[in-house]
Amino acid sequence: MVSSARLADICGVNPAQIRKDLAYFGEFGTRGLGYYVKELLYEIRNILGLEKKWHLALVGVGGLGAALLRDAEFVNHGYIFVAAFEKDPQRIGMHIGDLTVESLETMTPLVLEKGVELGVIAVSSPWAQEAADRLVEAGVNGVLNFAPVQLRCPSDVHIENVDLTLKLDVLSYKLTAPTSR
Amino acid sequence: MVSSARLADICGVNPAQIRKDLAYFGEFGTRGLGYYVKELLYEIRNILGLEKKWHLALVGVGGLGAALLRDAEFVNHGYIFVAAFEKDPQRIGMHIGDLTVESLETMTPLVLEKGVELGVIAVSSPWAQEAADRLVEAGVNGVLNFAPVQLRCPSDVHIENVDLTLKLDVLSYKLTAPTSR
Repeated sequence: MVSSARLADICGVNPAQIRKDLAYFGEFGTRGLGYYVKELLYEIRNILGLEKKWHLALVGVGGLGAALLRDAEFVNHGYIFVAAFEKDPQRIGMHIGDLTVESLETMTPLVLEKGVELGVIAVSSPWAQEAADRLVEAGVNGVLNFAPVQLRCPSDVHIENVDLTLKLDVLSYKLTAPTSR
Repeated sequence: MVSSARLADICGVNPAQIRKDLAYFGEFGTRGLGYYVKELLYEIRNILGLEKKWHLALVGVGGLGAALLRDAEFVNHGYIFVAAFEKDPQRIGMHIGDLTVESLETMTPLVLEKGVELGVIAVSSPWAQEAADRLVEAGVNGVLNFAPVQLRCPSDVHIENVDLTLKLDVLSYKLTAPTSR
């Protein structure tokens, strides 16, 4: 078993928050004892929709994109790249791991064929919106976006942004005026 | 000039929020007209501490780390990698761009010599805390962490986490139960 105190310690939050967050989804724990690890893991994976494997398509196989394709961390968590797309003709046809880089034009049939559910955009800023439009057109409604661009998509499309420069800006801001903030 | 409406449109927030956020830092705009672009850019860069160049050290030159080193986006924003460190003896001595990959043991003198102000951790999870400890010991107090680990650092050290799997989990969660959330 694991206590909320131990979980809180691992996560760097307080135990009451752990108990409150978990209670939001149901009654998992035993008061005074904690949680059965196996049961808790199952429930959390279920809540997060991780009991299934997710099929991902990458758009943009530059340095970052290629690194993402090779990242074992994703596979270990059930996220599997099943397709990779490029605008750059020089890169179309390249092999990265098990995948062949495909042209953007083939996205719609390939998304259907390979059951792509999530798109990862790792193209440069000027092409990010086009990449998003193509994914949405192909029926993908979950997008992880690495381009530092505010994507415009229909409201039923979920977008998560990873803006690395912005993260550095936050650090820069905190270090510039640490006393007042 | 640029209006708060135009800025809001670009950022995907509402104009009142733009005006409020900027007003927090001073009086930049002219009512009914908007902001002088040049002045606004200067002020924002100043607020964020971006009028200076920041010196970065990378720890971990695997796929992701190497891609970050080569990312022109960082340099364009004033973030310059001046050192790269590795634990893996196979990678120490490698050349990536202008940099030679150095051993973790040389961190303290090199951080001093090269004026490193921010650290970027791109090692696998089991080594992330050690990487952070080394950076902190060397005097770095701003860290961008890509390892899916809650780092423990002194309270004067600022940490920004980029957990890519967690971002995918958020999408997975939203797509699993889109109606109720």
